[in-house]
Amino acid sequence: MIIIGEKINGAIPVVAKAIAERDAEFIRERAKAQIAAAQDEDYFEEPVPLYIDVCASTDPAVEVETLKWMIEEVESVIPDELENVAIAVDSPSAAVCAEAFKFCKRTGIVNSVSMEKDEQGRVKTDIVFPAIADTDWGCIALLCESGIPQSVEDRMAVFEKIMAKAKEYGIAPNRLYIDPLVEAAATNQAAFTLFSECCRRIKAQYPDIHITSGLSNISFGFPGFRKPLNMAFMALAMQAGMDSAIVDPTNKDMVGLMYATELLTEQDEDCMNYIAAHRQGLL
Amino acid sequence: MIIIGEKINGAIPVVAKAIAERDAEFIRERAKAQIAAAQDEDYFEEPVPLYIDVCASTDPAVEVETLKWMIEEVESVIPDELENVAIAVDSPSAAVCAEAFKFCKRTGIVNSVSMEKDEQGRVKTDIVFPAIADTDWGCIALLCESGIPQSVEDRMAVFEKIMAKAKEYGIAPNRLYIDPLVEAAATNQAAFTLFSECCRRIKAQYPDIHITSGLSNISFGFPGFRKPLNMAFMALAMQAGMDSAIVDPTNKDMVGLMYATELLTEQDEDCMNYIAAHRQGLL
Repeated sequence: MIIIGEKINGAIPVVAKAIAERDAEFIRERAKAQIAAAQDEDYFEEPVPLYIDVCASTDPAVEVETLKWMIEEVESVIPDELENVAIAVDSPSAAVCAEAFKFCKRTGIVNSVSMEKDEQGRVKTDIVFPAIADTDWGCIALLCESGIPQSVEDRMAVFEKIMAKAKEYGIAPNRLYIDPLVEAAATNQAAFTLFSECCRRIKAQYPDIHITSGLSNISFGFPGFRKPLNMAFMALAMQAGMDSAIVDPTNKDMVGLMYATELLTEQDEDCMNYIAAHRQGLL
Repeated sequence: MIIIGEKINGAIPVVAKAIAERDAEFIRERAKAQIAAAQDEDYFEEPVPLYIDVCASTDPAVEVETLKWMIEEVESVIPDELENVAIAVDSPSAAVCAEAFKFCKRTGIVNSVSMEKDEQGRVKTDIVFPAIADTDWGCIALLCESGIPQSVEDRMAVFEKIMAKAKEYGIAPNRLYIDPLVEAAATNQAAFTLFSECCRRIKAQYPDIHITSGLSNISFGFPGFRKPLNMAFMALAMQAGMDSAIVDPTNKDMVGLMYATELLTEQDEDCMNYIAAHRQGLL
């Protein structure tokens, strides 16, 4: 699995406050906590890769400069020896992503593109893909074009368009993190079925591609009892081919289930990471 | 899902003590707690069926009379109006099962048979199947003959023998609860793969058959950090076709994940049971 750590996002009120006040210490501590949970070398021989998501959620006029500051603060606390930690540059604006990723010293991933058009009528892939074409950067791509397609076929049609764009710009499948989109199960009971069927078809076509999701959407609408749904989704989606997730790396329930699922699906040789996660207090 | 409640088993020290002292109140309370967790009609419109496992684990010489006492105590606290609650008569001895199930007023299940032979050289199925043939009783059947078969093919060979015995005695597939056997992942990393592949093949052949497991075996050898593995197993095994599990119905983590997995796999219409489980404090 590849963890995309979700704790530095301006949509979270305490983070928004820290951003507004340029509280560098707060941002650095949130980055360090995520690194410590996922990457502690005292415990993990082969830690799972971690991308620390950095999302400003500010006024668009100051978003690029805010991301620059956030990226610098986060990168300042990534120990040199940790090769599998980098940043996920997160903005609803593809143009902002295409600008802000350049501030990163480490090769990360862009979060995200889709076949949606921006305000100037440009398709998001056409903004980000050429910007990262000559780099090793990865990119999250959502299977939507205008709204969320309601059938597997319609989502796969968007997928084919994204893959055509990726080919056009020379982005290899293994640099892509496809998000088949997760709706709330409370409003669409087929939400997981749709997601998992997309996973299976995508992986059958491109075994090297990554699949990710903002999986906590699944439990939207169940206030106070979201956790079991998020956990069940984690296990079942991994089984269907999801190999990355946008989660809180310090959340023991979710991360514990992730390591357990890796073990059960024979992706954790000699149970090393499961035992390491236990020793680190993550289980 | 069908829950087989595991809390009244003489292998549990406090239960053994209660059995030795004929502490009827203790046994009744354990039965009531399991019924309340799984079947509360204030919450669940269509509660999942519950079999309260009753295992004496006493000296064989007194096992039948002990089971008789336990069965009477447990049945005394099952409210008449709960139609989906009964007993799982549990003994390593097929002969004891074949005798003790007759003490039950309600139709339950026998736990368990296999193709193993007893001390008199009789195959367990040949003892239990004829005894329940003219009833509606169900029966758990383990896919072992002499030791645990180490390949899917070998387990399926035992399955075929059990199905031949069931046919011989007129036991319909929907009365059988096949346990494909769960080994400890710590010693066999393919434990889940073996289990799930058996599930898929069995369900493909007999869509109406039940599949169950004593799933906590999966985490044996990981003292203090068994829970994430048990939970991941629950979700993944349900996805593979397991529709019953030997669990503690009052364990919020396990039961919460069970309801969440039913919801995600579209087996919980309008999320009714997930919401009910939450209202009852199970999530």
